[in-house]
Amino acid sequence: MAAQPDQRRTNSELQQAAKDHLWMHFTEMAAYQDADIPVIVSGEGAYVRDINGKRYLDGLSGLFVSQVGHGRTEIADAMAAQAGTLGYFPVWTYAHPKAIELAQRIAGLAPGDLNRVFFTTSGSEAVESAWKLARQYFKAVGQPTRHKVISRSVAYHGTSLGALSITGLPGIKTPFEPLVPSTVQVANTNIYRAPVHGDDPVAFGRWAADQIDEAIERNGPETIAAVYLEPVQNSGGCFPPPPGYLQRVREICDRHGVLLVSDEVICGFGRLGSYFGAEHFGFRPDMITFAKGATSGYVPLGGMIADDALMEPFQRPGSAFAHGITFAGHPVAAAAALANLDIFEREDLIGNVRRNAPALRAALDSLRDLPIVGDVRGEGYFYGIELVKDTDTKETFTDEESTRLLKGFLSNALFDAGLVCRADDRGDPVLQLAPPLICGPEHFDEIEQILRKVLSRAADMVHAPSARRR
Amino acid sequence: MAAQPDQRRTNSELQQAAKDHLWMHFTEMAAYQDADIPVIVSGEGAYVRDINGKRYLDGLSGLFVSQVGHGRTEIADAMAAQAGTLGYFPVWTYAHPKAIELAQRIAGLAPGDLNRVFFTTSGSEAVESAWKLARQYFKAVGQPTRHKVISRSVAYHGTSLGALSITGLPGIKTPFEPLVPSTVQVANTNIYRAPVHGDDPVAFGRWAADQIDEAIERNGPETIAAVYLEPVQNSGGCFPPPPGYLQRVREICDRHGVLLVSDEVICGFGRLGSYFGAEHFGFRPDMITFAKGATSGYVPLGGMIADDALMEPFQRPGSAFAHGITFAGHPVAAAAALANLDIFEREDLIGNVRRNAPALRAALDSLRDLPIVGDVRGEGYFYGIELVKDTDTKETFTDEESTRLLKGFLSNALFDAGLVCRADDRGDPVLQLAPPLICGPEHFDEIEQILRKVLSRAADMVHAPSARRR
Repeated sequence: MAAQPDQRRTNSELQQAAKDHLWMHFTEMAAYQDADIPVIVSGEGAYVRDINGKRYLDGLSGLFVSQVGHGRTEIADAMAAQAGTLGYFPVWTYAHPKAIELAQRIAGLAPGDLNRVFFTTSGSEAVESAWKLARQYFKAVGQPTRHKVISRSVAYHGTSLGALSITGLPGIKTPFEPLVPSTVQVANTNIYRAPVHGDDPVAFGRWAADQIDEAIERNGPETIAAVYLEPVQNSGGCFPPPPGYLQRVREICDRHGVLLVSDEVICGFGRLGSYFGAEHFGFRPDMITFAKGATSGYVPLGGMIADDALMEPFQRPGSAFAHGITFAGHPVAAAAALANLDIFEREDLIGNVRRNAPALRAALDSLRDLPIVGDVRGEGYFYGIELVKDTDTKETFTDEESTRLLKGFLSNALFDAGLVCRADDRGDPVLQLAPPLICGPEHFDEIEQILRKVLSRAADMVHAPSARRR
Repeated sequence: MAAQPDQRRTNSELQQAAKDHLWMHFTEMAAYQDADIPVIVSGEGAYVRDINGKRYLDGLSGLFVSQVGHGRTEIADAMAAQAGTLGYFPVWTYAHPKAIELAQRIAGLAPGDLNRVFFTTSGSEAVESAWKLARQYFKAVGQPTRHKVISRSVAYHGTSLGALSITGLPGIKTPFEPLVPSTVQVANTNIYRAPVHGDDPVAFGRWAADQIDEAIERNGPETIAAVYLEPVQNSGGCFPPPPGYLQRVREICDRHGVLLVSDEVICGFGRLGSYFGAEHFGFRPDMITFAKGATSGYVPLGGMIADDALMEPFQRPGSAFAHGITFAGHPVAAAAALANLDIFEREDLIGNVRRNAPALRAALDSLRDLPIVGDVRGEGYFYGIELVKDTDTKETFTDEESTRLLKGFLSNALFDAGLVCRADDRGDPVLQLAPPLICGPEHFDEIEQILRKVLSRAADMVHAPSARRR
């Protein structure tokens, strides 16, 4: 018999079923032993609603995903039409119209000669595919020793074992070692915690880029396949590139014959106010990875856009990129992505982000008067707020304090106050904000008010005399 | 402006766009320099249609995916309803009704205490997730040296770097090395090419299982985390388990404290005539991986079902499986999977496979009179036909002959004759067949007729006096 429809299942039935069977991701399951799991049932525009009917502003676009917002029946209709016509067929030696159209359209949005689109199902698979292409490419052009990757500290590039190897977060790597050899992490562009040149962005950017140069030299340039970076690094709380940094990294890669991969799983598809971060900051990667916003999350889809030059060795007779993914270039996902891009164009979402990004920055900057807000940084509709114990000294929290603050208080308090965002302790403690690209000043006011109320309480807790005693 | 609808784009426009922008998977792009890429535009039931209106019997279910067949508006409607209600939300510290319902329903179908469902977007991610769970689990229970995996020769377990490390196909691994240490491949259950006991399935199964035992001993039992196997191995052309083999592998794993992962990305969801291969063959794995057929491919979805015991260390306060995937447990994918299972139940597809599997076997077995058909093997709706130069000696083809036969003739000839199937040269040359689970004897007759016609021509080519001279 068919399962009961959602509406017929009570929250308590769903709670029990979830606790018995649904292994949630990056989640301490014990936290829900005596508490309800938040069950989200619907969404409309920038808002979602839980099973009790309570409404939340989705300040994180789900998970940096819902660019056009929730409840878009136009995308749902495009998906249903495609599913009824051709719900699945592989792009292994066959093609289908939607995958072709989407590849062409994405190539048209990508900068320069990035014209070749290799689809995947997820961001991790996009990151893996770019590494695999770099490795097979260098073997094909007679440089078989190039297999290593340089990436940046605290950077998140995915969780499958290859992508995890590139990730710069020891806490989520150590339980799964040994990983793929060999990856090396270098300094990121966190100028708030710059060890040198903290007062000079240009000098800091030059220093940070040169860390990549030194890592390439130290590990043997002839062994390095690629440098991976996000135009604005998410993990750690939104580190934008200092002026000149990305251009200098490009020069360094060119000098050493190393490929540059712009991981735009988060930054791509309008998040920064451009279709791609490479265009936004005016640098030229050899590959761009994407996922998340490409469909606004309505169907899983990711991919990698490669420079024409990278395909050349694979256009020789008998040669092939020895890689494939069953669900890649999925017709329904491609249809959703095309409908998503139609909305981008018709509603000028890129323009909306550009026009309103200063208002989001101003709203969040206004929180700097709170004695717990150390830094506010980001670009477009993509921000991090770093929380500190002391705004003058920038003293951060101990691990235990951070856990108590983020997991013990902030995550729940912000959600209870009606805001979906992310309290992240993977680096120094930060709040992450990435609202849907349809948002405007009225949403930013709401975000600011909720943050001010909750962060004021957090500041009181941190600075109360008892806090230091616990 | 919106892209033109499919119907408005001519084949020549699509061909050019595909050749310029769509990087096809596991595909020699040079093969299409002077030829059209087959463009599939629609599907209905067991048939698909190309852009020229020509119809094909989908003898491979797309890619072992389309269990309920193409064009199911019931699934399309369920997807659209969910996409309009909640098109995306993560299962990272939140849940939503469809992911919960699907986890409960899959746990109900899985055998024994396999009650915990960790969703992914793809089969590769399911395989990676099971390895990650095994590694973190053993570190959590005080056996941190257990990280290696034993798998089988010629077995395919996916293409992300972790899954690829478990895969036993050097041809698709070498271009991407170094991979994740340490994986070891042992003999598979190809009794047609058995080095010993080829005439005694029970003795052969005992021998093949003992290869796993020896590999565990040789590599240090205290370093082995898991054994991965498909109940019926796909790559190489459908190797079913000999009698007693899976039970003996289970005993070996128990004796050494090693986890057993049943990779059912292909075998799961009815392909063999049961919901899972573990149930079908009566053995008890610690984890089952799935993907493909779970949604009949209408939306990408995969996952891993773990024994309750594996979650125990992660239910302690402060503890979590440090793994997550943005699109996992996707609401639209879960809705599609639930609608897919509704069809399974209402149309008794498991019963359909069981009733008709003997007819499929008989149809394919009847081809054994052709002097190129060396072996026919499989289970349920999942078959491989091994092609040989000499059916008496089982002499196989050289690499060059195999390429000429499979890529030069059979792939195109079968497609031209109206059959989608797969001519696979990853091991010895085989044809792979896996029709939708809705098929019956009339489809098998069609498959047999096409195969007979095309394989007869292939046999003539192979056995013509000129063939040996080329």
